[in-house]
Order: sequence, then structure tokens, then C-alpha cells
Amino acid sequence: MTIYRYARQAEILGASIYDHSPGAILLSSGLAYPPLLPDVAHEAAGAARRPHQALQYGPLMGIADLREAICQFVAADGVACTPDNVLITYGAKDALDLACRVFIEPGDRIIVTRPTYMTALQIMRAHGAAFVSVGQDEDGLDTDELEAQLKRLEANGERAPKLLFDVPDFHNPTGITTSKARRMRLVELARAHGFIILEDDPYRRVRFHGEAVAPVKSFDRDGVVVALGTVSKILAPGLRVGWAIGDREVVARMAMHKANGGTSPFAQRIVADLMRSDKLAEHISQLSAAMRLHRDVMVEALAAHCPQAAVRTPQGGYFLWLTLPEDMDAERVASLALEHGVEVSSGRLCFPNQAPANHLRLAYSFAGPEDIRRGIAGLGKACDEYRARP
Amino acid sequence: MTIYRYARQAEILGASIYDHSPGAILLSSGLAYPPLLPDVAHEAAGAARRPHQALQYGPLMGIADLREAICQFVAADGVACTPDNVLITYGAKDALDLACRVFIEPGDRIIVTRPTYMTALQIMRAHGAAFVSVGQDEDGLDTDELEAQLKRLEANGERAPKLLFDVPDFHNPTGITTSKARRMRLVELARAHGFIILEDDPYRRVRFHGEAVAPVKSFDRDGVVVALGTVSKILAPGLRVGWAIGDREVVARMAMHKANGGTSPFAQRIVADLMRSDKLAEHISQLSAAMRLHRDVMVEALAAHCPQAAVRTPQGGYFLWLTLPEDMDAERVASLALEHGVEVSSGRLCFPNQAPANHLRLAYSFAGPEDIRRGIAGLGKACDEYRARP
Repeated sequence: MTIYRYARQAEILGASIYDHSPGAILLSSGLAYPPLLPDVAHEAAGAARRPHQALQYGPLMGIADLREAICQFVAADGVACTPDNVLITYGAKDALDLACRVFIEPGDRIIVTRPTYMTALQIMRAHGAAFVSVGQDEDGLDTDELEAQLKRLEANGERAPKLLFDVPDFHNPTGITTSKARRMRLVELARAHGFIILEDDPYRRVRFHGEAVAPVKSFDRDGVVVALGTVSKILAPGLRVGWAIGDREVVARMAMHKANGGTSPFAQRIVADLMRSDKLAEHISQLSAAMRLHRDVMVEALAAHCPQAAVRTPQGGYFLWLTLPEDMDAERVASLALEHGVEVSSGRLCFPNQAPANHLRLAYSFAGPEDIRRGIAGLGKACDEYRARP
Repeated sequence: MTIYRYARQAEILGASIYDHSPGAILLSSGLAYPPLLPDVAHEAAGAARRPHQALQYGPLMGIADLREAICQFVAADGVACTPDNVLITYGAKDALDLACRVFIEPGDRIIVTRPTYMTALQIMRAHGAAFVSVGQDEDGLDTDELEAQLKRLEANGERAPKLLFDVPDFHNPTGITTSKARRMRLVELARAHGFIILEDDPYRRVRFHGEAVAPVKSFDRDGVVVALGTVSKILAPGLRVGWAIGDREVVARMAMHKANGGTSPFAQRIVADLMRSDKLAEHISQLSAAMRLHRDVMVEALAAHCPQAAVRTPQGGYFLWLTLPEDMDAERVASLALEHGVEVSSGRLCFPNQAPANHLRLAYSFAGPEDIRRGIAGLGKACDEYRARP
């Protein structure tokens, strides 16, 4: 068969426990922590008792109950919206894909941080997007650099970017949280330069300490921000329920591109009932405590076994970003680590174009504390071996 | 907001009870019959008891149990495949969309019958497809006309079609079942001219009488057929579980384009358990009896109230195709019918290009026998009114 549209590499678009190295300790992707997967038996039985809603075709935008529950959920963050602004999707990835279907033609530019979420890059690439990459510091995306790049594009008469994609809370992969000032500046730049901000925010509620910063969406008065959310990182990825919150005309357009018959009303019914009960809040609280412990164990183990790596300790989320000495090749380290029974991700896939070779992304979400300790010890051995035979 | 990629009409991609005229009797789309929506409480509880599979990220291709169950399900039709050939999707529409993502670039040609499934046209159009439309007779797609068109394209040096989309069993909208000879001819033509056949087969098991014809896929020795299936028409649309069966490299490519994190393993677990039990077969038997009654009631009511319409009585499926006298405009009839409390679909949306104005598509799946009688009486009044004030 030689008639494929893309001769792409066999990169996968979805992280899955099944797609990883069998037997290895998985520190490579943001899977849910198995001991804390929720008990949804009650809500699933409730959905089964409402077949006329849960088993019939559902509304393309999503069921009203869930859209209302999501409005309440984000109201706590200062985001004001009505169900008309909310589209239910198969997770945040599906929402990103729909935004690309609406906005992106091949060759259109999307602004991203370097590095950024690797799967988001794959999804955007599948739509033929080109990237404008902007650096980050401890306050998040460097808005001065962004403005300079926008002006340069304008001065050169080049195509203006249509979208900006960012993860402002506990950024994937760097863990950085964008400051309030930068968030406000992003909204100003979007208005001035006519691009839409896609604010991907799966980790926001998984905060260990420090003060939450209001979402970018909360500063949006003109419908220039589409906020992407999901229950994958706060409840269960297997339900495949996420959402987009934006200008009502924008989300209605995104809904029209849903070629999958709308998001499963059965799954939506389960999530709506979980959000309406206290179970979600309790689950997030338990999960955050566990993730904090995982992070602490990983940071401590890294200090002991990988002293050559610079580590940024995030205030929440699922990931750690490691910077190895500049002469180290992270992909070789990762493949040596696999020989020691631990799977980690090279940071290379997180860069839209020229990628430095010396970064690793580690996830502490899936493995328990004991496996994290063993895994990092294995990574330490891999680094030592690398040094012994460079 | 004026930066949308498409200035498309507000056509919906998914049929949904919520998107229809409130209060009207719905004879317009293939929704499930509410009294026969299945009781999935047992299977949903079973999925909830297996959180490590059902609530975690699932494999991109789908869970092994369901892929095996589908191999067994289609083996009964003479289709030989292994789980490697099976990709689980969010219904057959999602599978069609993924096939377009793999094969179609803007301007590429897809062969379809005229008329064909309206939502399929929308999905293919969203990928920028152009259409080669071929007529049907009582044996299905006219393969002689297809061959002549293929030769003409070749002679003119025009781009050869990449895909053929058809619904060979109880065709949507015409109800025609393609003969065995035509199915075999289609496979020959696909081999000779290098296109892939997408065999969309949601209604196959909903047969009222007559002999089943083996699927197009069963005649495929070279991986030129991708069979699309779904539980939407034999179980419950709200679960959003469908599949594509094809060459293993083709379905693996389709999987790579799944931008939604894979199909929900929770829903897959429910469907796998239903397929493994006797419940699915029992449900199909009950459903087929009900659909047969609905069809009979509708055909009888049409003879009484709409004698001017020519009706083809299908041997199965969900739809009736009406041909009104050539001087009648079906869209005006449909809007008059709505005033009489019944929603029907103009056949216009089922044609890829030049559409005759005098067809209606009626679905007998959702409304019960009494509503079907009342609905067709309303349609009869609409036709009479049309004649009274043309």
C-alpha cells in the first residue's frame, strides 16, 4: 500500500499504557495513578438507568447537565460562561483537533512555547501547521519575544499566526506556571494581532502549594481565548470527556466539525453526576496529595542519583523537566535507561523545530513511590554509563 | 469572528434527537427506537469493576477483547480477519473521517452512489473531497457506469479516485441491497484502478426477510476493502463504538490519526461484554421484529395517504426512499409537513452534486407505529396542500 497521504513516522497520538515498553517502570507519560482510579459504579448505573439520554444519539454540543456543571466548575476560577460557550469533546486533544479543523489550513502558523506538549505538536502538524516558537522563563511564555516575532512577521509581510497554544498551569513539559501579568499580556497581544489563544489546562486543580493564578480565559472580554479542559488528569482518562469553552460562535463551529456523532452521552452522564457530587472534589484532593508525594520522591531520588541534571520543581501537575549537561544526548540516555528497566521521554519531541538534545521529561503520575525510586536509580545508572562510554 | 476556515452552512454532522424540531414526529433520521434501548447496567458495572483497563488510557487501536469479539462477529458473515485488522472508533462516522485523514487531500476524488448517506458526504466534503457519482439500480451501484467513468477519467488524464464509499446492505437512503455479482465486480475494479472501498455496513443484521449477501469485504484478497461497522444501529448509538476492518497497515495508519486519545475503553468494555453474551443477538432479533413492523406500518400508511409517491420497500434497515412526481419540490413538501407536526428529510442532501428535487428520505426507526401512522397522515396532508397551492 503506497497511497497514504502522509509518510509520517509511527508516532502515536495517544499515550497509553499498552503502547509502552512491557515490564519497564513508566516515567514517560502522564497516565493516571492506578490505585487512585475512581469508583464510578454508582454513576455508571445511573447512566444505564437513563437510556433515553445516555444511549441515544446525544446533542452535538454535549448534554446540558454537563455543560452547566462545567460552567460551575470553572466559575470557581473566575471564568464566566454559559452552556452556549461549552462544547463537550473526547478529551482536550479532541478539542485541540477541532480548533485546528476550524482555524488551520496547511501552512498556517501556530504560536507555541519551546518546549511544548508533544502530542499537541503532532495534532497540529497533522493539519499542516507551521510553528512560531517562543521561549519561556520562570513567568511563562516570553511575551516580549512573542511581540518582537509578531512585529517581524508583520514587517516582512508574512502570514500572521492564527492560533497560540499554551499550557499556563504546570506547563507540560516544563512545569512552569505563567504569571498573571503575562496572562493579561497574552490576551492583549491576541486582540492586537488577531490570533486565538488555546489555553490547555488539564493540571490546574492538581496544585501542591502556592497561590493559583486566574486562567487566561478569565481575562478575556472579546472571545479571543478558547479554554480546553478534561477530566483525564483529575478523574479518569478512560472516560474520554473534555471540553472547550469559548465564544459561542467558535465552539458551535468546532461542534460542526465533530465527525464522530458527538461525544458519548453515556460517558457525559457519568461525568456530570461526578461533578455534581462531592466525589470530584474529594478525588482531586486525594490525587493532589499523592502527586505531591510522587513529586517529592522523584526530586529527592534525582538529587541522589542524577546530580548532574538540573531539575525545576513544579508546584503541581504531573511532570518534571530535566536539563542534562549540554554535551549529553538525552535520547541515548533514555535508551540506556530502558536497559535498566525504566522508560523516560527525550525532550526532543517537545520542540517544534530545532531541538536541544539534553532534555528529559519525566512523569511522576503513574508509578508509585517505590517504583519512582527504583526508576530514578536506573536513570542514574544510565547517566553514569553514558559518562563511562560517551 | 471572521477567521473561520469554512464559511459552511450550519449543517450538523451528527443526527441527534436534540437537534430536531421540538414536538414534531421525527421521521427524519435514523435514531434508535427508544423502547428498545438496551439495559446495559450489568455491563457498565462490570466496566466500573475493571478500572485499570476501563478508566486508564486505552490502546490506540482499541482493547484486545473487543477487537477479538468483532473478528468473531464478522466471521459469521464470511469475513476472515485478526485483531490486527480491527481499529475501534467512535462509531462508523469516526472511522470514515479517519480514512479520509489517511487518504484524502483537497481535490482528491471519492466515488459515491447518487444518492448516498448525507452525513458521509458532509464528512468527506470537510476534507475537500470531490465526488464521482454513480447511479444505482435494484442490484446496487452500477458497476458498468463506474467502469466507464473510470476509463473516461483515465483517458482525460484526470486524477484517479482514491476511495469508493458505499452502503451495500439496505443502502442509506435508498434501501437497496447490492447483489453478489456487483460486490465481486467492485472488488475487481478497486484492484484494477487502485482505489480503496469503504464498505459502510451499519444495518446488515437488521434484515426482515430474504437472503443475506456476503459483505464486499469477504471478497477482498488484497486489502482493498475497509469495512466500517458500528453498534449504533444494532444496540445503542450513545455508546459511540464502531470499527474499521482493513489491511493492518491501513488501520494502523488510521489509528495514528486518532487525535482523541483513542476510543473510550470504558465504552469498549461494555460493548465487548455485550458481544460476548447472548444479549446482542437477542437484541438484534427483537429490534429487527420491531423495525419490520415499523416498515410495514409506514408502507401501508404511505399507500393510503401519499398514493402519488413511489416507494421502494427494503428488506431491512431503517429507511424508506420516496420518489414524488417530478414536478413536486420535496423541500417545500417537507416544510409543509412540519406544519402538520412531522419532520421528514428532503433527499437533496443525499446527492453529491446535481440533486433532483423530488425525493424524500423517511426513517421508521425512532417513531413507534402510532406516531408513524399519524406522521404519514400529516405528510399526506402536506402533499395535498402542495397540490392545492403549487
